Amino acid sequence: MWQKTIKDLLERVYDKTLTPEDAEEEFKKLISHDLGFAEIDTSRHIRTGFPEVVYCASKKDEEVLAIVRTLFHNETCVLCTRAKKTTFSLLKKEFKKIEFFTESGSMIIGNVSAARGTISVISAGTSDIPVAQEAAVTAKAMGAEVKTYWDIGIAGIHRLFAKLEKLRESNAIVAVAGMDGALPGVIAGLVPCPVIAVPTSVGYGASFQGLAPLLTMLNSCAPGVSVVNIDNGFGAGYIAALINHRIGIKK
Amino acid sequence: MWQKTIKDLLERVYDKTLTPEDAEEEFKKLISHDLGFAEIDTSRHIRTGFPEVVYCASKKDEEVLAIVRTLFHNETCVLCTRAKKTTFSLLKKEFKKIEFFTESGSMIIGNVSAARGTISVISAGTSDIPVAQEAAVTAKAMGAEVKTYWDIGIAGIHRLFAKLEKLRESNAIVAVAGMDGALPGVIAGLVPCPVIAVPTSVGYGASFQGLAPLLTMLNSCAPGVSVVNIDNGFGAGYIAALINHRIGIKK
Amino acid sequence: MWQKTIKDLLERVYDKTLTPEDAEEEFKKLISHDLGFAEIDTSRHIRTGFPEVVYCASKKDEEVLAIVRTLFHNETCVLCTRAKKTTFSLLKKEFKKIEFFTESGSMIIGNVSAARGTISVISAGTSDIPVAQEAAVTAKAMGAEVKTYWDIGIAGIHRLFAKLEKLRESNAIVAVAGMDGALPGVIAGLVPCPVIAVPTSVGYGASFQGLAPLLTMLNSCAPGVSVVNIDNGFGAGYIAALINHRIGIKK
Amino acid sequence: MWQKTIKDLLERVYDKTLTPEDAEEEFKKLISHDLGFAEIDTSRHIRTGFPEVVYCASKKDEEVLAIVRTLFHNETCVLCTRAKKTTFSLLKKEFKKIEFFTESGSMIIGNVSAARGTISVISAGTSDIPVAQEAAVTAKAMGAEVKTYWDIGIAGIHRLFAKLEKLRESNAIVAVAGMDGALPGVIAGLVPCPVIAVPTSVGYGASFQGLAPLLTMLNSCAPGVSVVNIDNGFGAGYIAALINHRIGIKK
Amino acid sequence: MWQKTIKDLLERVYDKTLTPEDAEEEFKKLISHDLGFAEIDTSRHIRTGFPEVVYCASKKDEEVLAIVRTLFHNETCVLCTRAKKTTFSLLKKEFKKIEFFTESGSMIIGNVSAARGTISVISAGTSDIPVAQEAAVTAKAMGAEVKTYWDIGIAGIHRLFAKLEKLRESNAIVAVAGMDGALPGVIAGLVPCPVIAVPTSVGYGASFQGLAPLLTMLNSCAPGVSVVNIDNGFGAGYIAALINHRIGIKK
Amino acid sequence: MWQKTIKDLLERVYDKTLTPEDAEEEFKKLISHDLGFAEIDTSRHIRTGFPEVVYCASKKDEEVLAIVRTLFHNETCVLCTRAKKTTFSLLKKEFKKIEFFTESGSMIIGNVSAARGTISVISAGTSDIPVAQEAAVTAKAMGAEVKTYWDIGIAGIHRLFAKLEKLRESNAIVAVAGMDGALPGVIAGLVPCPVIAVPTSVGYGASFQGLAPLLTMLNSCAPGVSVVNIDNGFGAGYIAALINHRIGIKK
Amino acid sequence: MWQKTIKDLLERVYDKTLTPEDAEEEFKKLISHDLGFAEIDTSRHIRTGFPEVVYCASKKDEEVLAIVRTLFHNETCVLCTRAKKTTFSLLKKEFKKIEFFTESGSMIIGNVSAARGTISVISAGTSDIPVAQEAAVTAKAMGAEVKTYWDIGIAGIHRLFAKLEKLRESNAIVAVAGMDGALPGVIAGLVPCPVIAVPTSVGYGASFQGLAPLLTMLNSCAPGVSVVNIDNGFGAGYIAALINHRIGIKK
Amino acid sequence: MWQKTIKDLLERVYDKTLTPEDAEEEFKKLISHDLGFAEIDTSRHIRTGFPEVVYCASKKDEEVLAIVRTLFHNETCVLCTRAKKTTFSLLKKEFKKIEFFTESGSMIIGNVSAARGTISVISAGTSDIPVAQEAAVTAKAMGAEVKTYWDIGIAGIHRLFAKLEKLRESNAIVAVAGMDGALPGVIAGLVPCPVIAVPTSVGYGASFQGLAPLLTMLNSCAPGVSVVNIDNGFGAGYIAALINHRIGIKK
Repeated sequence: MWQKTIKDLLERVYDKTLTPEDAEEEFKKLISHDLGFAEIDTSRHIRTGFPEVVYCASKKDEEVLAIVRTLFHNETCVLCTRAKKTTFSLLKKEFKKIEFFTESGSMIIGNVSAARGTISVISAGTSDIPVAQEAAVTAKAMGAEVKTYWDIGIAGIHRLFAKLEKLRESNAIVAVAGMDGALPGVIAGLVPCPVIAVPTSVGYGASFQGLAPLLTMLNSCAPGVSVVNIDNGFGAGYIAALINHRIGIKK
Repeated sequence: MWQKTIKDLLERVYDKTLTPEDAEEEFKKLISHDLGFAEIDTSRHIRTGFPEVVYCASKKDEEVLAIVRTLFHNETCVLCTRAKKTTFSLLKKEFKKIEFFTESGSMIIGNVSAARGTISVISAGTSDIPVAQEAAVTAKAMGAEVKTYWDIGIAGIHRLFAKLEKLRESNAIVAVAGMDGALPGVIAGLVPCPVIAVPTSVGYGASFQGLAPLLTMLNSCAPGVSVVNIDNGFGAGYIAALINHRIGIKK
Repeated sequence: MWQKTIKDLLERVYDKTLTPEDAEEEFKKLISHDLGFAEIDTSRHIRTGFPEVVYCASKKDEEVLAIVRTLFHNETCVLCTRAKKTTFSLLKKEFKKIEFFTESGSMIIGNVSAARGTISVISAGTSDIPVAQEAAVTAKAMGAEVKTYWDIGIAGIHRLFAKLEKLRESNAIVAVAGMDGALPGVIAGLVPCPVIAVPTSVGYGASFQGLAPLLTMLNSCAPGVSVVNIDNGFGAGYIAALINHRIGIKK
Repeated sequence: MWQKTIKDLLERVYDKTLTPEDAEEEFKKLISHDLGFAEIDTSRHIRTGFPEVVYCASKKDEEVLAIVRTLFHNETCVLCTRAKKTTFSLLKKEFKKIEFFTESGSMIIGNVSAARGTISVISAGTSDIPVAQEAAVTAKAMGAEVKTYWDIGIAGIHRLFAKLEKLRESNAIVAVAGMDGALPGVIAGLVPCPVIAVPTSVGYGASFQGLAPLLTMLNSCAPGVSVVNIDNGFGAGYIAALINHRIGIKK
Repeated sequence: MWQKTIKDLLERVYDKTLTPEDAEEEFKKLISHDLGFAEIDTSRHIRTGFPEVVYCASKKDEEVLAIVRTLFHNETCVLCTRAKKTTFSLLKKEFKKIEFFTESGSMIIGNVSAARGTISVISAGTSDIPVAQEAAVTAKAMGAEVKTYWDIGIAGIHRLFAKLEKLRESNAIVAVAGMDGALPGVIAGLVPCPVIAVPTSVGYGASFQGLAPLLTMLNSCAPGVSVVNIDNGFGAGYIAALINHRIGIKK
Repeated sequence: MWQKTIKDLLERVYDKTLTPEDAEEEFKKLISHDLGFAEIDTSRHIRTGFPEVVYCASKKDEEVLAIVRTLFHNETCVLCTRAKKTTFSLLKKEFKKIEFFTESGSMIIGNVSAARGTISVISAGTSDIPVAQEAAVTAKAMGAEVKTYWDIGIAGIHRLFAKLEKLRESNAIVAVAGMDGALPGVIAGLVPCPVIAVPTSVGYGASFQGLAPLLTMLNSCAPGVSVVNIDNGFGAGYIAALINHRIGIKK
Repeated sequence: MWQKTIKDLLERVYDKTLTPEDAEEEFKKLISHDLGFAEIDTSRHIRTGFPEVVYCASKKDEEVLAIVRTLFHNETCVLCTRAKKTTFSLLKKEFKKIEFFTESGSMIIGNVSAARGTISVISAGTSDIPVAQEAAVTAKAMGAEVKTYWDIGIAGIHRLFAKLEKLRESNAIVAVAGMDGALPGVIAGLVPCPVIAVPTSVGYGASFQGLAPLLTMLNSCAPGVSVVNIDNGFGAGYIAALINHRIGIKK
Repeated sequence: MWQKTIKDLLERVYDKTLTPEDAEEEFKKLISHDLGFAEIDTSRHIRTGFPEVVYCASKKDEEVLAIVRTLFHNETCVLCTRAKKTTFSLLKKEFKKIEFFTESGSMIIGNVSAARGTISVISAGTSDIPVAQEAAVTAKAMGAEVKTYWDIGIAGIHRLFAKLEKLRESNAIVAVAGMDGALPGVIAGLVPCPVIAVPTSVGYGASFQGLAPLLTMLNSCAPGVSVVNIDNGFGAGYIAALINHRIGIKK
C-alpha cells in the first residue's frame, strides 16, 4: 500500500500533475501526522490491516473522546481497552452504537464487521476472566467469531476434555491462566491450531505478579504455544484475530 | 479424532463385535503406549496435525536412531533438532533421504510435502542465524515455503525497509533477535500478519543470556507480536507453520 | 473410581441397558460439568479423596454462597479460605453449623469428621500466625487432630527444644516462618516425620516479600523438608492432612 | 530418645553411679562428637529415624571411604549420592555388598531392609531420569518399594492417564519435571496421595536453570503438591520414604 | 578552582597575611559547610559548573523554601524537581520570577540564562511525557534551547522519520520510552549525536516497573546510546545540557 | 551461663537437694517459657548480653504494653522500634521515664546506663535520617555514646572529609545510604574501625527498593564493611553497640 | 542527507533525466543493500558520522577479513573489537597500517585522523583495564585525544584527587569499574563534564556478573552520569568520542 | 594522621622552611602515588591501620611479586589472597618467611605480630572450609588469635551446642555457610559478641550461587549478624580482626 503510494507520487511528478515540492510535502504527510498533544497513527490500518486501538488506562475521558473522534469512520469500528465507566458514559452521549464490557473495561464503538472464522478463548480460573474477556472482545471487534470457555483449568483436567472436540475446530485458541500457567501447554498437546498463551498476575507469593505462569508458558513442553505479556488479553486477542483473518482472506 | 474412536469402540461393543474387556484394553492403548526407556507419543499426529519432533541435544546417537525408526513412515518425514554431526553420520547409513543443516544442527529425514503458502524468517544479526535457521528448517519440514532474510536489524533500519514489500506477503513472520530485541516490534508495526518473536542469548552483560530481548518482545508497543522461549527457533517455526498450514487448509 | 465408571458404562452398553449415544453423553458428564459462570469440580472428592475448597479472596459474597451450596452435603463439610467477615455473615444465615477463624479468614461449614492422627503446626513469630492458622484449620477440616505452637523461632532456639518431645510424635509438621526462614530446617534435623515448610511474606527489605525464606527452605541442609508457596498455609495444611489421612487408612 | 538419655543420666547421678563431672562429660558427648576434619552426625538416626547420607559431589574418594567406614554397621545400609565411578571402584574393594546407579551416581552400601509400602517416581522427560533415579534409589534405600514411570510428561498427556490407576495406589508420588514443570500439578488433581515435586535444570533459555519449573510447582493450582530444591532427587525420595515409612509403622 | 584556592591559601600563609591556624580553618570550610538539618553543597557550582538541584519528593514545603533561599542568588536560577503544587504556592509568595511545570512538578526560580545550542527531547508515548518534560525543563534551566517531540514511538515508526531532519541538528537527544524501550536504539542508528535514553516505569506485567526498557536500552544494537535510571528525566536532561554547554564553551 | 546452670542442677541432684524429677522440670523451664499468645525470650539477656527488643510494626498498642511490662525491670531499660505515636501515648501513662523519637518511631522506656565509648552514625542524604536515627537510638539504649552526621553523601564528597578526624575516633561507624550506596565503601577506605553499612529503600527505579545500595555495599572495594538488611537501622546500631560494649568490657 | 537524496531523485524525475521506474529502483538501493551472508550497513557513516564497527567475537577470521575489505577506504580507518590474535595475523598480511591492542583485542586498520579535543578513560582496578582499553582505542579511532588513568578506585580515594585537575579538562570522562561501581559517581560530583560509566563483570558473588556496579551507576547520587552495558568499553568510548567530536565541529 | 601532615606542611611554609611550590608538590604526593601499571595505595596503613592486601585472582605471578616487593617491610607482614601455587613458588625464592594455605590459596609473607585477643571461625559444612580458611588466615595475619570449628551446621544442631561455651568467649565470630545459610542466625541468638556471616556459593539449584544463604543472613531473626559478600572469607576475617584489634588497643 505504502509502496504503491510512493510510485503513484513519482508518476504524478513525472506527468507534471504534481510539482517536486508538493510531492515532497505529500511524502512527509504520508509518513507522519502531528496532532499537537499526540501523534495519531492514521495509517496503521493501511500498514497492518487494522486501525489503532485506544489504550485508555492513563488517559482522561476527554482525551479518549478526542482520539475516538479522529479514528472513527462510519464504515469501521473503534476498539478501546481498559476504559473507565465514566469514559463510557461520556462517549455514549455522542456515539449511538457503543458497547461496554464491565469485567475488562473493553469498549466497541461502531459496527463490528460480520464474523468470519472461529477462535476460542479459555480461562483457567474465574479470576482470569477480566483478561480473557479483553481477548474475546478484541477478537470480536476484529471480525472473528469468538467462543469462550471459563474456569476449566488443570486442577480438574476432565473439565477441559469435555470441551476438546469444539476447541479443536478453532482457527486459534487464546488460553489465559495465572498461578502455575500450565493450561496452554496441556491444550497445545491436544489441538491442531496455534495456542496464544496469556499469563495473568492472579495468584500470590511465588507467582511474583505473573512471572511464574509467564515462565511456564515460555517453557511449554508441547510445541504450538506462543506467549504475550502478563495480563495482555488485548494482545492475545489481536494475534488470534490476525491469524483468523488471514485464513478468511484465503477462502 | 480421539472422540470418534471412543464412539466407534462403543458401537462395536453394542454390536457385540467387541467384548467390554477388549474394548477397555483398546481404550487404554489409545491413551498410552509404553516403549520401555521412552514413551513415544505415536498419536500426536492425530491430535495436533504433526508428528513428534526429536530433540537430540541430550540423546545419544543410538537413541536418536531408535526413535527415528519408530516415527518414520514412508509417506511422511521426521524432523530432528540440535543434532550432532555424528548423529547425522549414523542415520545417513540407514536413511537415504536425509538433509543436515550445519548452523543449527537441524535434520530432515524423508520427503517434505510440497510447499504451500509462504512464511518469512528474519534474523537481526549474523549471530542469530543458527536460531533462525532452526525456525526455517522446522517450517519447511512442516510444509511451508520459507523465505529468509539475514542480518537486517534495527541498527541500520533502512535494510529492513527494502524487504518490506516482500515481508508483507507472508502468512506469518518469524523474527529472531538478541541484544535489544527491538526488531519484531518494529516489523509488527509495518505488516498485516502475525509476528512470532524469538529472543536469542546472543550478547553479553545486561543481556542476561537473552532476558533483555525476551522482555523487550513481551512489551512490544506494536500489537501482533507473540513470543517463544529464548533460542527456541524450533518453536517459532512450528507455530508459523501451524498458521500457514491452517490457511492452506481453508483454500 | 473414574476407571470403574468407564467399565461400568461399557458393561451396561454391552447388556443393552444403555444405548451408545446415552453412554457417550454419560461419559462426557463424568468428565466435565458446566455451571455457566464457573465449572465446579464435583468429582474431585472421587479423584483425590477431598472435595474442592473455596478460595474466597477474589469472589463476591453471593458467589461464595452459590458455590458452597453446590458443594455442601449433609455428610461432609466445606472449607473456605481467605473469606471476608461479610461473607461469613451471609453464609451464617443459611448454614447453622459454621465456624469462622478471624486471623486467617478460614471458614468451615458443616461437621468435621472425628479427628484421627496428629499433626503439628508451628509459627516462628507472632506475625506468621495468620498463615499458620490457615494451615491448622485446613488440616482440622480434613480430619486431623492439630496441635499448634506459636512464636518459637530460632532467635531463641531453646523455646523450640522445650516442645521437641511432643513435636516428635506428630505424623507431619507444618513449620511457618518469614524473614530468615530457618526454623523448618532446624526442626527437620530433630524429628522423624516430614516437615512441610511455609515461607511467609512477613519481614522487609531483602526478604523480598518472602523470597528469602522460600530460598532458605528449598536449600535446607537437613533432609525431610518440602516447601509450598509463600503464605500458602492452606496448601501446607492440605498436604499434612493427606499424609496423616493415609496413615489413618492403613490402621 | 534424646530426652530419655538426659533423664537416665540424671537418675544415675542421683543413684551416685555417676559423678556430676562424668555426667556432664556424657551430656556433652551426647550432643557433639568431633572427628577432626569433619563432625559426623552419629546421632541423626536416633533423632530422625534414618542415618546421615553421604553427599559425594565435592569430596575426594578417600574422604568418602573414611566417612562410609564411620557410618557403616552390619545391621544397616549407607546411602551415597552423586558419587563418581572412581569412588565406587575404591569402595567396592572394601565393601562386598555395594550397588552403583550410573545415571544418578547413587550408591547403596550394605543390605536394604525389606520393602514396605509403595511409592511412585515419575519423570516428565528422558532428560529428567538422572534426578528421578536419585529419588528412586533414595526411597529404596530407606525401605520403600519403588515403582518408576519414565517420560510421561504432559505434551502427550494420554501417556499419564494410562498409568493413573497404578499411581493412585502409591503412598506418595515423586514427580520430576523440567521446562514447564506442569506434570506434578496435573497429577495432584487426579490422585489421593501427596505429590513431591522436583524441578530439574533440564531445558534452556527462560527455564533459567530450573527456576521456571520451580515457580510452576510452587504455584500449583491443584492442592497436594510440595516442592524440593531444583535437581534434588535425593530430598524428594527422602520425604516420600518418610511418609511411606510412617504409614508402615502404623500398620 | 579548588586547587587554585589551596595554592592561594599557601601563598597567603607564606606572605604571613594568614596564620597557619586560620589557613587550616579556611581549608576546612572550603571542604565542608554544616547547616544543621542538612549539608548544603554550596561549592558544587565551582566543581561541576552547575549549582545543586533541589529534589523535593521527600521534603516538606518549608524545607524546600529554606534550601532555595540558601541556593538562590540574583545572577543565577534554582531548579527544583518533583515539587508539589503546595510547594510552588509557598515559594511564589517570596520569589517573583518562578515557573511551575504541572506534568513533571519541575520548577524554575529566577532567570534562565540565554539559550545556547539545541537539544531534543523525545517521548515514545503520551504516558512518558511527565518524565520527558522533566528532562526538557532541566536542560532549559541549564541554558539549552530545547525542542520536544511527544508520542512518536516505533509502533508507527513513520512518525519518527518525519522529524528526522530536525533531530539530526541537535547537540544531544534525550529519548524517553517505556514498555519495549526500543526508540532510543532506532534513533541512534539514524543521527550523528549522542542519545541519552530514559526508561520509564510506564507499562504493566513483564515491564517490571521499567526493567524491560532499561535492559533494552543497555543492550542497544546501535552505538551512541547511554542510559540513566528509570524515570530519571532530570538526570538525562542534565547530561544533555552538560554536553550542549561544553559545545557552547568551545565556540 | 547456660552451661553453668546445667552443672549447678546436676550438683544439686548429686547433693540430693533436688530430685531428678524436679531437676528435669527446671531444665525444661530453663530452655522454654510459654506465655500463651507469645513466647517471651526472657533468657536472651543471659545468652547475648542484651534483653529482647520489641519490634512494634505489626503489634497492637495493648500487645506492646503487655510485652514491655514483662521485659521491664527497674535496673534496665526496654527498647521498642517502629512504634506508632498511639503506642507511645498508651505507654506514657504507665511508664514515667519514656522517650519517643518521631522520625524512626524508636522508643526507650527506663534509664539508659551511662554511655561508654563512642560510635558514629552517618546518613548519606536527608531521606536516610529515619533509618539512621533508629541505629543511633538503638546504640544509645545499649550504652554507647553516639555521634550523628546527617546528609554528607558522596555527591559532595568534601562534606565527608571535614568530619573525618572525628569519625576516625569512633569504635564503630554506622553508614546509612540509599541510591548508589557508595558512602560506606568510601569511609571504610579512610578509617581504622569497622563500618556497618545500612542500605535504604530511598530512591526509585533501578534502586529496586534498596537492592542497588545493598549490592554496592556487599561488593565494597575497601575492606572493613559489613552489611545488614535494607532499612535495618536497628540491626546496625545493635552490632555497633555490641562492638563498642566489648571494647568497654576490656578496659 | 537521506532526505536530500529523496528530493534530488524527485527533481531528476521531474526533469525527466530519470524515469519513475529507475527512480524507484534508486530509492530502494538507498534504503537497503544485500550482500548475501550479511547486510553491510554502508550508509551508517552518512547517517551517524562514523562507519560501522566490526564486532569480531563470534566471527571467523575470514569473515572479518571480508567485512573489513568492504568497509575499508584509503581515506578512513576501520575499527575492530574483541578480535583474536589469529584474526590480527590474517589481516596484517593484507593491511600494512594495522594496530592490535592485546588486553582488549581491539584493532585499528588504516590511519586515524588527527586527534582533536581530549577525553579521559579511568579504570577503578587493574582487572578493569581490558574494558577500559577498548574504550580508549575506540575513542582514539574516532579522532579523540585520549588520556588514561589506571587503578585509581575509591578504596584509596586520594589516588583520584591527585588526577583531578587534569580530569577536569576533559570533554568527557569514561569511568570503568566493577565490584561496588562507586567511582563514576564520585567523579561526577567533582568535574564539569559528562561521565560515561561502564560497569564490568569483574568481581564475584553478589556482583552477579556486573549487575551490582550497573545498578550503582544507574542510581548515582551525583548528576552527570550515564551508563552503558556491562563490559561495553566500545560503547562508552563511542559516546565519549561523539561528544568530543561535536565540540570539535563547533570550533 | 593525614590532617596532621597538612598542618605540618602549613607550619613549615609559615616558618619558610618550605616554599609554597614545594609544599604543593608534597601535598599532591601525600594524596596520590602513580606506579605506572598500578597505583599502590601506600598510605592505607596510615588511614585504616592495616596495609593493602594483594588479591591475586586475576594477576600474573610476576605482578604479584612486584606488588609484594613494594608493600613488604621488615617490620610488618604482607597478606595475599587467592594465590596460585605457582605464585607461591615464585615468591618463596625471594622471601624466606612465607606460608601458603592450600585450601584457600591464602599466603602470608613475613612475621605476623603476636596474637592478641581471640576470634572464632566456624564452617557449616566441609565444602565451606576454603572460604572459612581465608577468613582465619586473614584474621591471623592481622594479629588475632584464631580458633576454628569446621562442619558444625544446623542439620545436626547438637554439634554446635558442644562448642558453645568456647564460642561465647570470642571477641567476634565469623560464621561461614552455604545452602540455607541458617547457622549465623542460630549462633547470634546464643552469644554476646558480633557475628560476621559469610554466605558461600556451595550448593546447587535454588541456592543460585549463594543468593539463598545471602538473603537468609540479611534477614536473620536474631540481631547481632552482619554480612559480607558471597565467598568473601577475606572480608569477614578482616572485620573480625578490626574489632578484635580495637578491643586490644583499649586494654
